[in-house]
Amino acid sequence: MSGRIIKAGVAQLSFSADREANRRMNIEAVRTLASRGARLVVLSELHDSLYFCQTENVDNFDLALSVDEFAAPYREVAAETGCVLVTSMFERRAAGLYHNTAVVIDSDGSIAGTYRKMHIPDDPAYYEKFYFTPGDLGFKPVKTSLGKIGVLVCWDQWYPEAARIMALSSAELLVYPTAIGWESTDTPDEKERQRQAWITVQRGHAVANGLPVITANRVGHEPDPSGQTNGIQFWGSSFAAGPQGELLWQAADDKTELKVVDIDMTRSEQVRRWWPFLRDRRIDAYGPILKRFND
Amino acid sequence: MSGRIIKAGVAQLSFSADREANRRMNIEAVRTLASRGARLVVLSELHDSLYFCQTENVDNFDLALSVDEFAAPYREVAAETGCVLVTSMFERRAAGLYHNTAVVIDSDGSIAGTYRKMHIPDDPAYYEKFYFTPGDLGFKPVKTSLGKIGVLVCWDQWYPEAARIMALSSAELLVYPTAIGWESTDTPDEKERQRQAWITVQRGHAVANGLPVITANRVGHEPDPSGQTNGIQFWGSSFAAGPQGELLWQAADDKTELKVVDIDMTRSEQVRRWWPFLRDRRIDAYGPILKRFND
Repeated sequence: MSGRIIKAGVAQLSFSADREANRRMNIEAVRTLASRGARLVVLSELHDSLYFCQTENVDNFDLALSVDEFAAPYREVAAETGCVLVTSMFERRAAGLYHNTAVVIDSDGSIAGTYRKMHIPDDPAYYEKFYFTPGDLGFKPVKTSLGKIGVLVCWDQWYPEAARIMALSSAELLVYPTAIGWESTDTPDEKERQRQAWITVQRGHAVANGLPVITANRVGHEPDPSGQTNGIQFWGSSFAAGPQGELLWQAADDKTELKVVDIDMTRSEQVRRWWPFLRDRRIDAYGPILKRFND
Repeated sequence: MSGRIIKAGVAQLSFSADREANRRMNIEAVRTLASRGARLVVLSELHDSLYFCQTENVDNFDLALSVDEFAAPYREVAAETGCVLVTSMFERRAAGLYHNTAVVIDSDGSIAGTYRKMHIPDDPAYYEKFYFTPGDLGFKPVKTSLGKIGVLVCWDQWYPEAARIMALSSAELLVYPTAIGWESTDTPDEKERQRQAWITVQRGHAVANGLPVITANRVGHEPDPSGQTNGIQFWGSSFAAGPQGELLWQAADDKTELKVVDIDMTRSEQVRRWWPFLRDRRIDAYGPILKRFND
């Protein structure tokens, strides 16, 4: 990627229960971003449906598809526009075995690779452990015509280990499709602390690894079908940061946006010369990181 | 530490070649902070001398002391004020074997524990690999009357692994004595990116681990004795952040400050219930973190 600018498109959108309409909107977003010069387009997490994990409902497994079924329309638009796409889906791997999977499609329409979300959350309104088996593909960057992309998904964002292993595995860029928002009963102060924590920890991964980060979040309100909570207000705030964690762009927290951001890939080389963190890692002393807790 | 506020004092100071004067100033700072209510006082890195690593000069090894020699006056003021102190020194362990060592002194004047800087930088004006053998004590929190303190030093700040292992080893608070600053030829934009990166990555450690962070930096200009560079403008900006990375206080970048910050230790318990990152770590998949690089 050295010596090059990647024109990265980010689609911050709101979705409905109409999956065909969502798909059409996503494909239109790719076309729009490509027409503005994007060569990479990042969609948010599970962008073909509502965020169905607000309740535990076995009927929602009907939403799951094979990678091939899911990818077909996105492969078409990738080939049509010449964009690399980072997409996100509910993968049916076998009866009773499902994953939260990112599918990276290369600019020729081929599937460049997949990543199965490794860290699965579970808290009220985010019942993901009911739906998704934790990924078994590890933290491996996907090789594309634009370079090696370290795709991680949502809850992975909070784990420095995931970002680090991607960087150690030659990722040149970290990309996070995500679906995160506010619970209505939190105070405005608490909401802002949460949003800032989410931005800060990901900018921290950029700094620690000398890599750019791109994050695409959904935006808008989705009700809780069970009525137990007031639903989720997805906080948007999609962003791109450079390899010193410097914010290159950040979206609003309350509206859809389609944005093309220039990512200067030559910066990483320079920043890592100034700050050679990889040189001085104490791999002889990191063993305890493989423990659950050092009691 | 649950249910308690720790009143944490941070001493952001400038130092001279007169080590006795530095020591007197540090001891006076502890007394001042204690008189304002501090029960913990954090001093910046290598606070008894100038930052001597701007050049490689064998005569500078004369500055090194044993832990006992160094600690004596700080043990006295800890006992006198009833404060826990986080101090930082140039340790002579044997002829030809030196470390950059943090010494934690308990409120009764006893030495609670030491930490030897694990990650050693080396770049122009920071020739630390010439002076300091990398630490061999690992990442172990020091148990004090205020709780378990995860002390890390300067370059360690950039390593998520260090913060994580401290958290997994029951640290309740991360503390970073540090000495970092600007090189005069960098542009104002670059200087600001560097300062913000430094703050961001440490706030990221707070978020990822659900722990407060306190950082004490030196401030002011120190010339390069060799004349090869224009010296270091230490950027101050000492700060305290809560367990969501929220900034509780930040010092100026251009003047000395003595500040007492309230650290609410009950927040960590609550934040870790909301965001149970430790629950979902993929320790089965983190093996590559122990490699230099996954070629």
